[in-house]
Amino acid sequence: MPLLTRIRGPRDLDRLSLEQLDQLAEEIRTFLVEAVSKTGGHLGPNLGVVELTIALHRVFDSPKDKVLWDTGHQSYVHKLLTGRQDFSKLKMKGGLSGYPSQAESEHDVIENSHASTVLGWADGLAKANQLRERDDHVVAVIGDGALTGGMAWEALNNIADAKDRPLVIVVNDNERSYAPTIGGLANHLATLRTTDGYERFLARTKEVLERTPVLGKPLFDTLHGAKKGLKDFIAPQGMFEDLGLKYVGPIDGHDIEALESALARAKRFGGPVIVHCLTEKGRGYQPALQDEADRFHAVGKIHPDTGLPIASSGADWTSVFGEEMVALGREREDIVAITAAMLQPVGLEKFARTFPERVFDVGIAEQHGAVSAAGLATGGLHPVFAVYATFLNRAFDQVLMDVALHKCGVTFVLDRAGVTGTDGASHNGMWDMSILQVVPGLRLAAPRDADQVRAQLREAVEVKDAPTVVRFSKGAVGPAVPAVGRIGGMDVLREPGTDTPDVLLVSVGALAPMCLEIAGLLDQQGISTTVVDPRWVKPVDEAMAPLAEQHRVVVTVEDNSRVGGVGSAVAQALRDAGVDVPLRDFGIPPRFLDHASRAEVLAEIGLTAPDIARQVTGLVSKLDGKFGQTVGSVEPARD
Amino acid sequence: MPLLTRIRGPRDLDRLSLEQLDQLAEEIRTFLVEAVSKTGGHLGPNLGVVELTIALHRVFDSPKDKVLWDTGHQSYVHKLLTGRQDFSKLKMKGGLSGYPSQAESEHDVIENSHASTVLGWADGLAKANQLRERDDHVVAVIGDGALTGGMAWEALNNIADAKDRPLVIVVNDNERSYAPTIGGLANHLATLRTTDGYERFLARTKEVLERTPVLGKPLFDTLHGAKKGLKDFIAPQGMFEDLGLKYVGPIDGHDIEALESALARAKRFGGPVIVHCLTEKGRGYQPALQDEADRFHAVGKIHPDTGLPIASSGADWTSVFGEEMVALGREREDIVAITAAMLQPVGLEKFARTFPERVFDVGIAEQHGAVSAAGLATGGLHPVFAVYATFLNRAFDQVLMDVALHKCGVTFVLDRAGVTGTDGASHNGMWDMSILQVVPGLRLAAPRDADQVRAQLREAVEVKDAPTVVRFSKGAVGPAVPAVGRIGGMDVLREPGTDTPDVLLVSVGALAPMCLEIAGLLDQQGISTTVVDPRWVKPVDEAMAPLAEQHRVVVTVEDNSRVGGVGSAVAQALRDAGVDVPLRDFGIPPRFLDHASRAEVLAEIGLTAPDIARQVTGLVSKLDGKFGQTVGSVEPARD
Repeated sequence: MPLLTRIRGPRDLDRLSLEQLDQLAEEIRTFLVEAVSKTGGHLGPNLGVVELTIALHRVFDSPKDKVLWDTGHQSYVHKLLTGRQDFSKLKMKGGLSGYPSQAESEHDVIENSHASTVLGWADGLAKANQLRERDDHVVAVIGDGALTGGMAWEALNNIADAKDRPLVIVVNDNERSYAPTIGGLANHLATLRTTDGYERFLARTKEVLERTPVLGKPLFDTLHGAKKGLKDFIAPQGMFEDLGLKYVGPIDGHDIEALESALARAKRFGGPVIVHCLTEKGRGYQPALQDEADRFHAVGKIHPDTGLPIASSGADWTSVFGEEMVALGREREDIVAITAAMLQPVGLEKFARTFPERVFDVGIAEQHGAVSAAGLATGGLHPVFAVYATFLNRAFDQVLMDVALHKCGVTFVLDRAGVTGTDGASHNGMWDMSILQVVPGLRLAAPRDADQVRAQLREAVEVKDAPTVVRFSKGAVGPAVPAVGRIGGMDVLREPGTDTPDVLLVSVGALAPMCLEIAGLLDQQGISTTVVDPRWVKPVDEAMAPLAEQHRVVVTVEDNSRVGGVGSAVAQALRDAGVDVPLRDFGIPPRFLDHASRAEVLAEIGLTAPDIARQVTGLVSKLDGKFGQTVGSVEPARD
Repeated sequence: MPLLTRIRGPRDLDRLSLEQLDQLAEEIRTFLVEAVSKTGGHLGPNLGVVELTIALHRVFDSPKDKVLWDTGHQSYVHKLLTGRQDFSKLKMKGGLSGYPSQAESEHDVIENSHASTVLGWADGLAKANQLRERDDHVVAVIGDGALTGGMAWEALNNIADAKDRPLVIVVNDNERSYAPTIGGLANHLATLRTTDGYERFLARTKEVLERTPVLGKPLFDTLHGAKKGLKDFIAPQGMFEDLGLKYVGPIDGHDIEALESALARAKRFGGPVIVHCLTEKGRGYQPALQDEADRFHAVGKIHPDTGLPIASSGADWTSVFGEEMVALGREREDIVAITAAMLQPVGLEKFARTFPERVFDVGIAEQHGAVSAAGLATGGLHPVFAVYATFLNRAFDQVLMDVALHKCGVTFVLDRAGVTGTDGASHNGMWDMSILQVVPGLRLAAPRDADQVRAQLREAVEVKDAPTVVRFSKGAVGPAVPAVGRIGGMDVLREPGTDTPDVLLVSVGALAPMCLEIAGLLDQQGISTTVVDPRWVKPVDEAMAPLAEQHRVVVTVEDNSRVGGVGSAVAQALRDAGVDVPLRDFGIPPRFLDHASRAEVLAEIGLTAPDIARQVTGLVSKLDGKFGQTVGSVEPARD
């Protein structure tokens, strides 16, 4: 990689010739395939933006100018050009983040991986520049998929409002984000795009017009020369210009010269301008280009030549859900599925193949997913909206005000709940069991194994007058954890083996094996422990308070923020019942978590069996009046 | 009102002549001005949709067909035509809701007053109709202001995706929602609108074209007869049609015949269609038409002839904030303000007049308000985003992922927090102190009086590396509540008068006077009470746990959902510190609240001094080993 290794920063690009830039692009592609094959990561999106990223850093002067990436998983090339070329620990502890990171580089701004935010950031930065009379440039790169998100619209509407506020918007149009982009916008972009280049299209149109006697050459010239021109009339980039945004494009997103020329024009324009670039996701990598399901959007470790996964994992939570949805779909005609542009990642592919008319991909539009679900339910169907836990935050108001207030029977299936780890702070699904606690009537299930996923999904879709939620973890599902008894609606996972038990351990979801391990460790200390899995963690089971009263300490363990989570809800239920047994709640501390493996993160935050057993032992010792560790050493909820 | 009183349901409209319909419209306007003058309510929006509502109920067959109202404050005429003509207790306990209400009528669907949701509901209902092979119609009425919300965009994008799914969208374009609609969309609608009627505009254009020799008549005819026609070329309804939505309009929204004709065409169309109606907010009522600040959007009791308020209230929380913002703006150039289409209601009018270039009205777009604030902060400014507490739910993800994760110094000022009462379930600001608890680094202030609003706003804008929140109530601000001491960062409002106090009463925000009253009542029972106002309720003050340990019981009182609120946070802080003093948390039960006055709601949910004092007395008696009331009678958090 003779050229790439010499690039220490964007300005090192300045002295390269066009030929060298093309060679650099090739080197970068080779680097990406080799590096990401070893670590896993977002391959397809980055292969698509090699030339675009080079051109951006040639035309703009980062970090003085702000180069902003929507969603951020396409920032690998940007990292390579801004001094970060050690990808050996990509997404691993101590290695590069899979997204931009202010801690990594002054060239990075937006860190979170939630889509459609970049135009809002850009609008704010451009407003600040204008007020502070700075001549820095702001350039925002957004995919066509992310334009389906409402935030993008809100931002465009604002950006268009100030004709004199410079801002360059690059639409990175690869016809799909995670999957083919849906909706009216996609069709409109397709019109703009045209199959074989806009200029050829323009020429052909001119030819057609000239063959029409009445209109002929004069009309073409008149229209072409007019303010908006034929371009508008025939291939209406209208939508953007109707909003008052200058439109440049479409540009071949793999032609560095064309890109630089368009970006330079846009930079000089002095107002908001859209540069519409056509790129090819997975460009230059055959396995990606040939895969219609877009499985190379994000990959695990793969063989670089074939693209085949090196290790195949066993059954995962997602596929258990996906299979059960198909079974349910066969049994009940009223069940429909919703996804926000993530059909395959949330396990709905097979359901979609089996019942194509009963699945709705709403685009990257969680708000619409939830509100349209309320409409579907009111119309007599039972929607199941499968979405990553972290992305449901986008639809909190709609879950509360549209689904719950209207008592709609809608089931939300939250995938990738809890610590997911390697994708960093914004991909952990650690908020859902807290914020959803406030939603009246909502019932929330945290299944502990595959059987429970199936059973609780079935229980959820039976509820007709309230939202239900089923949340589970990322990745491989563990072996079945059998119940040894039942108290109220709660499964007993372990009996204390004594009539005067010490600890009631409340296990939430996938942490059941860890909780059983804790109980075993406590047993070694002579502390007798009951382990229950409430199954439905909201509302708190009626049997919880009477059961708690039979123990000396209640301990809750959850894979969710400690703040306002299941532990807090159980504590409140005990207070309300007048049961003042001491309680300690273990979960994720209220701070953003750095990227690392799930196990590393759990160890770091003390969410392991030995850590928790040690603290509980300390508490019991204290209650015994012995000197022991204080439980005050729990990482506190304060931040 | 000879005609109006004979309308018991929509089908009673069928036998009226056009003249009678016009007379009915007049009667309805007279009724609205008289009725709403007496009770207060949303006057302007309803005066604007009289003819539109009549036409909708003539063309569509509600409740078989679903007539859906966005935001819902313009549904008074709809209520009058669907059997609800007793407006004497509008928005009062036991009277009509100020919004649609399923409990009131089978003609009502969407109850919540959060804007921009109607197209999502309509999309869901239309999908259900199609899947279930029903031929019911769905018609959604949305204002031009609500189209600035991202949810509207997400929905349009989905709706446009299915050309064969019937759905009628009525854009009620009055050029302002609460205030002049902002942004590129507004400019685009203005283009469509034209000053003096589209048809006249078309005629004039034809005239101009015919005077142009080269183009002349043939071009006009060709274009006019072509698929999209001159209409598209000259006044591009383009934006909607670019998305694939059939566009009809613009229609004079006060011409019943024209409206019926357009709606009937739209109904027959068989796919998604937009009917663009031009209406005049406040139509027929001079005081409203003459008021540029749109103060007749929602009114209190007014004199029907002059529109002047009958009772003027004293200083309110909003204006205290508004004045302080102006002072701060003078002192610090970096302070800028953001509103989501509610400049006047959130008290930013004077700031906007004083610093016009430093206020940003983002439209009904809370998400963009928060994200662009992150951009502004990153660009070196300190944004203050003033928004109703209930509407911040819309931006939860952005507060968490954009502002907090990126450690941006942004201040959110939450107006109308807590129980607001008469606007019903969706206007109560009762969720913010719960869901914001999970946001790492965020600091939340609940000022108890005007002095504290000023002081805590100043403290908030000093924080440069985290979001800050200042939340206060609706309406008149009470007299100052002085501190008698300070412990840590907390104000002591009342000393217990003994060295062995019984109760630590934690008072949140505007409930300080109530808490002092509770302490007085407890005093009469021989129970000594310390009252503290933490001022900053998140994070819990370091001094809280040591102070709690000096008491026998901790009681928290907050104007927010009991679930996950300040009480839960204090309880967790005590647990973390190993302080197992019993705690009881009083707040709003986790259910949706019916409309009634604030005092009536508080009484109904037991959030009054006598109720709380009685329960605390019971708890203390129990601790004393006496027989007393159990505190288990607190309305539990389970729902």
